[in-house]
Amino acid sequence: MSRELNTIFIGRKPPMNYVLAVITCFNTPDINEVTLKARGQAITTAVDAAEITRRRFMKDLKVSKVNIGTDTVQQEEGGTRNISTIEITLNV
Amino acid sequence: MSRELNTIFIGRKPPMNYVLAVITCFNTPDINEVTLKARGQAITTAVDAAEITRRRFMKDLKVSKVNIGTDTVQQEEGGTRNISTIEITLNV
Repeated sequence: MSRELNTIFIGRKPPMNYVLAVITCFNTPDINEVTLKARGQAITTAVDAAEITRRRFMKDLKVSKVNIGTDTVQQEEGGTRNISTIEITLNV
Repeated sequence: MSRELNTIFIGRKPPMNYVLAVITCFNTPDINEVTLKARGQAITTAVDAAEITRRRFMKDLKVSKVNIGTDTVQQEEGGTRNISTIEITLNV
């Protein structure tokens, strides 16, 4: 199964939307690992989504890896800026 | 040396304030590990501070551990709510 199928990109929606996406992923056959990816302010939403899923819905879920990093993004007005990123890997 | 001396609590100030705090910590004799702790929206600031320190000022810095968790806080109007937390441990 392709790596992309179990990656969820976190954006500006409320955390609960991503919690449902995570649970849906884990209910797909053969998926036992899901990665949440987020940048900038969405980093907090990613942590919220991981924690809500783990504490409220899937008590046997483990946070197997948390990576932080930096992406360089092109700005509309020219030039680049750096934005922080996070990748949270969840396992059952 | 006490564990608390190398813990930095991240709040609402700009990331650069915490970058300076991290660098100051590492310039203290005998300190080779600093932990950033943050809750809620400050989680993004913690990741920013860690990444800016690592990429711009201390190229040999390693992110040795990232833990996410949940704190339960008492609300003024009664009741409790959960808030996500992060702990980022940096090593030279």
